[in-house]
Amino acid sequence: MIIAQSIFLSSPSSFWQFPLLATATEAEYAPIVLTGVLLSLVVVYIASKLGGELSGMMNFPPVLGELIAGVVVGASALHLLVFPENGAIASDSIIISILQFIDTLSPEAVTSIFQSQSEIVSVLAELGVIILLFEIGLESDLRELKQVGYQAAVVACVGVVVPFVAGTVGLMLLFHVPAIPAIFAGAALTATSIGITSKVLSELGHLKSKEGQIIVGAAVIDDVLGIIVLAVVASLAKTGEVDVVNVVYLIVGATVFLLGSILLGNFFNKSFVAIADKLQTRGNLVIPAFSFAFFMAFLGNAIHLEAILGAFAAGLVLDETDKRKELDEQVKPIADILVPIFFVTVGARVDLSVLNPAVAENREGLIIAIFLIVVAIVGKLVTGWSVFGQPGINRSAIGIGMIPRGEVGLVFAGIGSASGALDKPLQAAIIIMVILTTFLAPPLLRWAFKEEKSVKQANLAG
Amino acid sequence: MIIAQSIFLSSPSSFWQFPLLATATEAEYAPIVLTGVLLSLVVVYIASKLGGELSGMMNFPPVLGELIAGVVVGASALHLLVFPENGAIASDSIIISILQFIDTLSPEAVTSIFQSQSEIVSVLAELGVIILLFEIGLESDLRELKQVGYQAAVVACVGVVVPFVAGTVGLMLLFHVPAIPAIFAGAALTATSIGITSKVLSELGHLKSKEGQIIVGAAVIDDVLGIIVLAVVASLAKTGEVDVVNVVYLIVGATVFLLGSILLGNFFNKSFVAIADKLQTRGNLVIPAFSFAFFMAFLGNAIHLEAILGAFAAGLVLDETDKRKELDEQVKPIADILVPIFFVTVGARVDLSVLNPAVAENREGLIIAIFLIVVAIVGKLVTGWSVFGQPGINRSAIGIGMIPRGEVGLVFAGIGSASGALDKPLQAAIIIMVILTTFLAPPLLRWAFKEEKSVKQANLAG
Repeated sequence: MIIAQSIFLSSPSSFWQFPLLATATEAEYAPIVLTGVLLSLVVVYIASKLGGELSGMMNFPPVLGELIAGVVVGASALHLLVFPENGAIASDSIIISILQFIDTLSPEAVTSIFQSQSEIVSVLAELGVIILLFEIGLESDLRELKQVGYQAAVVACVGVVVPFVAGTVGLMLLFHVPAIPAIFAGAALTATSIGITSKVLSELGHLKSKEGQIIVGAAVIDDVLGIIVLAVVASLAKTGEVDVVNVVYLIVGATVFLLGSILLGNFFNKSFVAIADKLQTRGNLVIPAFSFAFFMAFLGNAIHLEAILGAFAAGLVLDETDKRKELDEQVKPIADILVPIFFVTVGARVDLSVLNPAVAENREGLIIAIFLIVVAIVGKLVTGWSVFGQPGINRSAIGIGMIPRGEVGLVFAGIGSASGALDKPLQAAIIIMVILTTFLAPPLLRWAFKEEKSVKQANLAG
Repeated sequence: MIIAQSIFLSSPSSFWQFPLLATATEAEYAPIVLTGVLLSLVVVYIASKLGGELSGMMNFPPVLGELIAGVVVGASALHLLVFPENGAIASDSIIISILQFIDTLSPEAVTSIFQSQSEIVSVLAELGVIILLFEIGLESDLRELKQVGYQAAVVACVGVVVPFVAGTVGLMLLFHVPAIPAIFAGAALTATSIGITSKVLSELGHLKSKEGQIIVGAAVIDDVLGIIVLAVVASLAKTGEVDVVNVVYLIVGATVFLLGSILLGNFFNKSFVAIADKLQTRGNLVIPAFSFAFFMAFLGNAIHLEAILGAFAAGLVLDETDKRKELDEQVKPIADILVPIFFVTVGARVDLSVLNPAVAENREGLIIAIFLIVVAIVGKLVTGWSVFGQPGINRSAIGIGMIPRGEVGLVFAGIGSASGALDKPLQAAIIIMVILTTFLAPPLLRWAFKEEKSVKQANLAG
């Protein structure tokens, strides 16, 4: 500003030229960057709908299809969406080639446009995951969480600790992976996706059974634990070293942050309702809600935890108001256009070719992927055996119900990949783990309940 | 990608380090950029609601308050939102100071974070204006446009041509402003905002009067003409020179683009409804709608017109479907959280201090501002005299009704400022013109209809 003013004052002839000169590069590239962003969004939307619908038709959760569609348009196949943080350069991107076809661009322009466009799509994806967690928070009922009781809490804790320890220690000891990526990959194994399991349970008529209640309760607790674990792990990845004091700070910080928000919830709730009631102009509900959610997300980042932790806390809190239904309805279309950007880019960032078994160098990555998948399945299966005082309960059904990773697993993969904490083979391994666990759970769950039925019938007959 | 692979293959020891090294800077800054973006959004939302509500209470359109709130948080006063394209550097930004307080940042980091954050907020604002024009398109009824007839069309054309020519020629001849900024400022004088006038007309019970119908019809046609003018002018600003062949291409291009979209509208409509009906997963309506809107916006940019022209065309087209009501409802919350980013940043980009009369150097800018305001008012007042074959019509009411510039005037100021085509004094002059014309219209309009009443009563009495 001082520079601008001094030129402005000293040279009257530059009065008109100055603003054009000062911003030549920005002003020249800005419309092209926008063109690239718009095209990227169109690709994301078409891919997300094609994938989501196909997945839905096959009775899998739409998010799985969005992820796979992302893999198809991304670094693994079509190269429409590629990211410099994941090792791509401008000439790898088909969208950049289209922009070059439209306008003649210098090599520096191309690099700068590619960087800007990728950065903007990444931030849109991050806003998407912030809104996703806000929505998950809105949908999680705190009272329900208090009711599910010890059984579910124990299952949830075992389901977090066993895969995390087995995954992290295994990667470090067996494969000599450094601590940070090993911890990140271990953490990605902890999540449980409630969506697909509860859908299958309700299909089988077991949603209200003892097993169903434990699985659903544990998955909800898992969400909360998973977000705390993610906040801790992502912060570790930022500093790049594992320091005991820091880890303790992060765990305590994340827990206090979440509990503090819930305790202050009543105050936030009342203020929110009072403000929303007073406002007369458009956006009287969503603007206060998003101001709060984004402020909490900002706070999460500012205290070196994670933005999504703040958004989740904001959702948990606003869930308790009588505006909830109306808010849910208005948040939905906003989430609908921003969340797919996250899921598709998570898929797009992965380069599955690093796991191509035909290439000898990929052997280690492939073995790691297989190891992760085994830990992901076994680590959740054992949770069934942690249920106590419930003779005759279907322990394998509970364990299997906890297997699918879904959205939260993808949140781990996405944040790990965007932050550079995960290298390509590990990232690809986690994505494959998420896809496989989600695909495997429904048939296994059907089998577990059928098995139970035939055992019971055999017992009755005998 | 090739580089990544070769390092990967040649040096097994760099297996784990490479992804961290390659993206050190990006990965390090990305969370801080996100923190800055989140804080900027919170500032935008709080400012927009405070301004919008105050404005609404005083019976002015909320958008005026959002604009003024933007001026307050921007370069003119609080320096919370400032932009490098408008001459600000990182140390001018209070948000950057807050980020520096949270994290220790090197000077290069600060510059890079400021650039990225500003670029992202700018693109969010551009997505906001794209969605605004999409919504305006959805709300414009093509059939209504066909009905308003010649009278309104003539008024609209006069109201576009007179201020444009008087403004552009005046700026060039009297103030020696170069062609491009002069044309941009002249174009900003052409818009008519329907919102505030129709609100006042309905208050006075004159909305369905002959005058009311002509004003509303002309304002709708003005919107369309204004967007074509903007597309042409913004394209000229991009190339930086006025070339007759180019101008002809742009005018013809913009008209053909708009008419073409409308002619193909039936086809788009049927495809849209067919697709939306088939989709079963979430976002079945908004995702196809936004894919279409963003693709049209991309096309608008790609053929060197404007993204907003495409978005407007997309809105006009989808307006004709039977999904319209449902779509309107779902687009609303999305517009609610993105459009304010545009209005607030338009205000924030302006530095009103360049018009401070206490500083001698500002004299020229101030005189230009006064000139623009006079042209803005007189140029629309004359439209009342272009109405033919309507003896006894209230010509001054029609002229006054066309005065407020509102949203579309701001779209000009915002795009001109972001593209660097307007220098600071011109930009500030346009903003003041928009604010003043919008403030003046309601009392003037009330006066004009009261005047008419007393004249008529005097005639009856006489």
